[in-house]
Amino acid sequence: MANILTSRSENYSQWYNDLVTKADLAENSAVRGCMVIKPYGYAIWEKMQQTLDKMFKDTGHYNAYFPLFIPKSFFSKEASHVEGFAKECAVVTHYRLKNDPNGKGIVVDEDAKLEEELIVRPTSETIIWNTYKNWIQSYRDLPILLNQWANVVRWEMRTRLFLRTTEFLWQEGHTAHATATEAVAEARQMLDVYAEFAEKWLAIPVIKGRKSDSERFAGAVDTYTIEGLMQDGKALQCGTSHFLGQNFAKAFDVTFDNKEGKIEYVWATSWGVSTRLMGALIMSHSDDKGLVIPPKLAPIQVVIIPIYKKESELNEISEKIAPIIAKLKQKNISVKFDSADNQTPGWKFSEYEFRGVPVRLAVGPRDLKNNTIEIARRDTLTKQTISQDDIENVVENLLVEIQENIFQKAKTFRENNTRKVETYDEFKQVLDEKGGFILAHWDESAETESQIKEETKATIRCIPLDSVDEEGKCIISGKPSKRRVLFARAY
Amino acid sequence: MANILTSRSENYSQWYNDLVTKADLAENSAVRGCMVIKPYGYAIWEKMQQTLDKMFKDTGHYNAYFPLFIPKSFFSKEASHVEGFAKECAVVTHYRLKNDPNGKGIVVDEDAKLEEELIVRPTSETIIWNTYKNWIQSYRDLPILLNQWANVVRWEMRTRLFLRTTEFLWQEGHTAHATATEAVAEARQMLDVYAEFAEKWLAIPVIKGRKSDSERFAGAVDTYTIEGLMQDGKALQCGTSHFLGQNFAKAFDVTFDNKEGKIEYVWATSWGVSTRLMGALIMSHSDDKGLVIPPKLAPIQVVIIPIYKKESELNEISEKIAPIIAKLKQKNISVKFDSADNQTPGWKFSEYEFRGVPVRLAVGPRDLKNNTIEIARRDTLTKQTISQDDIENVVENLLVEIQENIFQKAKTFRENNTRKVETYDEFKQVLDEKGGFILAHWDESAETESQIKEETKATIRCIPLDSVDEEGKCIISGKPSKRRVLFARAY
Repeated sequence: MANILTSRSENYSQWYNDLVTKADLAENSAVRGCMVIKPYGYAIWEKMQQTLDKMFKDTGHYNAYFPLFIPKSFFSKEASHVEGFAKECAVVTHYRLKNDPNGKGIVVDEDAKLEEELIVRPTSETIIWNTYKNWIQSYRDLPILLNQWANVVRWEMRTRLFLRTTEFLWQEGHTAHATATEAVAEARQMLDVYAEFAEKWLAIPVIKGRKSDSERFAGAVDTYTIEGLMQDGKALQCGTSHFLGQNFAKAFDVTFDNKEGKIEYVWATSWGVSTRLMGALIMSHSDDKGLVIPPKLAPIQVVIIPIYKKESELNEISEKIAPIIAKLKQKNISVKFDSADNQTPGWKFSEYEFRGVPVRLAVGPRDLKNNTIEIARRDTLTKQTISQDDIENVVENLLVEIQENIFQKAKTFRENNTRKVETYDEFKQVLDEKGGFILAHWDESAETESQIKEETKATIRCIPLDSVDEEGKCIISGKPSKRRVLFARAY
Repeated sequence: MANILTSRSENYSQWYNDLVTKADLAENSAVRGCMVIKPYGYAIWEKMQQTLDKMFKDTGHYNAYFPLFIPKSFFSKEASHVEGFAKECAVVTHYRLKNDPNGKGIVVDEDAKLEEELIVRPTSETIIWNTYKNWIQSYRDLPILLNQWANVVRWEMRTRLFLRTTEFLWQEGHTAHATATEAVAEARQMLDVYAEFAEKWLAIPVIKGRKSDSERFAGAVDTYTIEGLMQDGKALQCGTSHFLGQNFAKAFDVTFDNKEGKIEYVWATSWGVSTRLMGALIMSHSDDKGLVIPPKLAPIQVVIIPIYKKESELNEISEKIAPIIAKLKQKNISVKFDSADNQTPGWKFSEYEFRGVPVRLAVGPRDLKNNTIEIARRDTLTKQTISQDDIENVVENLLVEIQENIFQKAKTFRENNTRKVETYDEFKQVLDEKGGFILAHWDESAETESQIKEETKATIRCIPLDSVDEEGKCIISGKPSKRRVLFARAY
């Protein structure tokens, strides 16, 4: 077996890197920090895209496409945005190469220098709001509810496949509204869409919340987030939705005549999830034997492996299996029949287990006689021999059960790893010995937040939307606090 | 009516620009040569993507994703590729901005200069073959059949929306094979896929052919093309498929152990179509009244417009229409019921005509009494009043008929504008007075081809695959020729 993984307990980080590359999800490219997303990884991303795209359209959004390049000056227009975004980025300065006069390959043609440098988009608020300026005159032009699927570039110093790469794929929604109320409702709606997607498709339980001032998106009034807990006890931000107020409208002078005939700045939101979700998916469910993929996102949901010695046995099995495959496909279940003769059944069992295929069926000569089939599930690694009759319904129900089980397992893990603490000592002890989510009182000051971050590397993941009012004292300053907030070390 | 177009006969180029922007398909952005694809235009592109993506998968291909950036040195590795591609391109030289010490916005941080410049991909052969090197050892690793949907950048001096833009969207297939025969078959298969898509979905009849040596893709052994004829008599290359031989394998040292145990270079193809197809679609079918979109690609296939004065009439119409909408949706027909009360029916008729919605249904109080409905088709601009009974089947059949009619109309146009000429004088006369495709004899020399191009701006679009052997004389040199080739002025 080539697919030996470092165990999670031994080195979680190494386990993750091994798994991503050995399961053919992605690999590092020749370009620093940029990844190649391999077909198996991309197939999972495509399923995520299709699902989200439908959810966006069902909530009234349309797709569009805006330029990859943004003029440098655009970033200076929104004061806090430039601080947060325009620094570590790819800068295009020239538009032509030429043959090296000394005959050594090609060199940049210094005569082809751009008057104004172009930035490869790290996010598209600026170019989009510069465009919206021409689209919006009256309240009748609102709302604008757009999304784009695109690549973005942020020059990260330390990169990890899917989790933090220089180039990544994402979607970014950008909406324009006539009122603050409507824009806030939009930002909250999209947070709910993300949470539903995370829980029902990715099978990752998430905490919905608001970011603290210092963790907010550069240019936002409020940033909402969904936070997941990975198996190593670290948090991962799975998606964010921002209420941008009138910040970008003011920066790009986007006004409209409201219903009362008065000129007003437009209200905005933006929201995004990225290929980072691939990292979340892997780190939430997979184990020392390889990937565990929730059935709803698995490129192959069922693999069927024939056990045979003679060609005639394979023929008999294939004949018996054909109608089962047809019935599974009719139920929109993606099924692969692997009858390749250059690998043993044992090798195949191990391979599909490693690749996280949720259900495995195996059929041998004895099964033919007995009208039976072996059915194995990836999530529990259990198997049993059952009748071939009605197998398509058994599989269909099992896929639902596996999806639910994977989610429940992750939820139980999170519950077992979410702890309330009352003192800073307790906070540090839990963090170092157990990790996970910590609910603690905080005095709402940036100083306290920054001290905790500096001393423990834990950050406020969010102020949970469902947090209950509770009088308490800040674990650092002892000042009064009205509710607990969620801390964790994070990716 | 705001949507007045310059007529095609007056100024075809202006008509095209007007239509693209006024029909909300795309517009120029703040970044030179880069376009914004607006929601209505993007919805058509999405339908193209979905259709092609399924066709690629049905022929055994998988999607993947490779980096946006390519190290400059990669382009020097394939000699002819660098000549054709690496010159006019966006060059990333720095990875950081900083605050201007003089307080004037932000400037490039000269300390953050890349050791090796990165090129924003104009096409991805080099980075992909550099990656394939690690994926291929034995014939068992072949074939590799991948596609990617991506943005690419070519620094064009003169740009036009969809037809030639600095950044555009496309798909690029990149396959690796053990034999030349298999690679050629792949390149030809994808040409057939493109031709089928062009004719059955875009409703554009195309000529399949091989490019002459001078028109070949930089780095290819053979370039296959599909060529369409636009309404102004100019050709448009709609898609290309390249047999790359072992050129890229040699440039990136990609070898494999063949079945006989010998080391050999891998054989390659690449093939692509882009948002240029949007331009082809528009220029093939649309008219002075606006867009004409083939039903299979129309974002809205049927619009229903109620004719009413009183609220109660609208309610009655809506009630009557609801089951019809449901039945149409059940047939996967996309339908829009436009009951907005801030525009007149006349305005709506004109608007949907302009946007190329294939079928329009209108229902007024009289129709309610008579159980009738007015049905109008965009392609012929004809209308009639028919019974409401069975309307969903009538519409379904009509959409098929419109798709076919649009294709036949374009085919008849092409047939009427494809001419055989025997002399260079005749060639120039036809070109100047009529345009269109010209079939003429050519001596297969680059000199002749270049002379014709220089003197007439016409190029050899292709050597048609179905050209029949026919003895003749080159229109320039008088040298013997074995078959006619296809000339035209082109986009």
